[in-house]
Amino acid sequence: MKGIYLVTDSGLCREKTLEFTVTEALRAGVCCVQLREKNSTTRGFVETALRVKASMADVDVPLIINDRIDVALACGADGVHIGQDDMPAVLARKLLGPDKIIGLSVESWEDVEAAQELDVDYLGVSPVFPTPTKTDTKTVWGLEGLARIRAFSRHPLVAIGGLDAANARDVIRAGADSIAVVSAICGTADPYGAAQILCETVNFNLDKP
Amino acid sequence: MKGIYLVTDSGLCREKTLEFTVTEALRAGVCCVQLREKNSTTRGFVETALRVKASMADVDVPLIINDRIDVALACGADGVHIGQDDMPAVLARKLLGPDKIIGLSVESWEDVEAAQELDVDYLGVSPVFPTPTKTDTKTVWGLEGLARIRAFSRHPLVAIGGLDAANARDVIRAGADSIAVVSAICGTADPYGAAQILCETVNFNLDKP
Repeated sequence: MKGIYLVTDSGLCREKTLEFTVTEALRAGVCCVQLREKNSTTRGFVETALRVKASMADVDVPLIINDRIDVALACGADGVHIGQDDMPAVLARKLLGPDKIIGLSVESWEDVEAAQELDVDYLGVSPVFPTPTKTDTKTVWGLEGLARIRAFSRHPLVAIGGLDAANARDVIRAGADSIAVVSAICGTADPYGAAQILCETVNFNLDKP
Repeated sequence: MKGIYLVTDSGLCREKTLEFTVTEALRAGVCCVQLREKNSTTRGFVETALRVKASMADVDVPLIINDRIDVALACGADGVHIGQDDMPAVLARKLLGPDKIIGLSVESWEDVEAAQELDVDYLGVSPVFPTPTKTDTKTVWGLEGLARIRAFSRHPLVAIGGLDAANARDVIRAGADSIAVVSAICGTADPYGAAQILCETVNFNLDKP
């Protein structure tokens, strides 16, 4: 899972549907889609997840559900992304079984150390830079913090927070495997074009470091 | 499952802990405990549910989780209570298996008719009377609505909404199998005493209708 990792935000998609944004981002080559619906009812989240999962039937890109293991199980998602206020990782693994993807946000150095012992598939380094789409985080890691986590952790790293085409290469160079974006795709009028530039930026960088 | 059905509200418990309220209500003879935590993080809800489940190890009373099938699975609860905005009942049954309890709130006559075909264990008739602890409901059923559901439905009925020791007998006479209360137990200084009066009221009524 290397490349651009789309995290959705229905609110940011505005007049565009969430499915349109996801489809356009997939067409441009994103490597992962995470559905994040913090203000939805369970019913609404499940219905959205089932629609998006159906729309991803023909692509070999994982669908990840933010926080809600019940929604992930209900829609047959490929995994979940959990934060430090979500289901504990050990319980999440127990409920999801050995094959599902579990991503875990790390928001402090203690989180990074604790994650070393956990059966998770990647760490979400959150946030790398200040971001308006997530305001409940403690530490802004910066490129130095990201590099420090890269040197220490045994897990792949998905960087998130304030990332765009202008800083994506620096973030990859600092040690991220993937660049997660919310507003840089969802908040644009042309999600395909925005995702394409991001994918090209990162792929160029991966080929010629 | 006949008798007094406790639905928790951490906010109403105020200086008392939720576990204290649950323990006192169980000591007084409630027939079911439902944890409802609408404002908690997933982590907070799971931790509360694990604590309450552990405190109920020695009693033969089911623990039901409101809405969150992930939390129910994580804490080994006996079932879930779902509303019309929660996980669809068919998916909930699939995730929980055949043996767990599923309760479903009915808030319109269409809900009652649709529930007839669903593999659920009881209907929550919500609300019977106006209530300050749940403000997002559509229909106030009244005793007439409850009696109409009783005449139609194949499921046991748990009445909820504005119920207390003063109206519990009327609600049982109108067809409810159980009386669900939130504030009438959680909102009192003496949850044991409040639950005991409710249990006696309902049991007296069941013995001598």
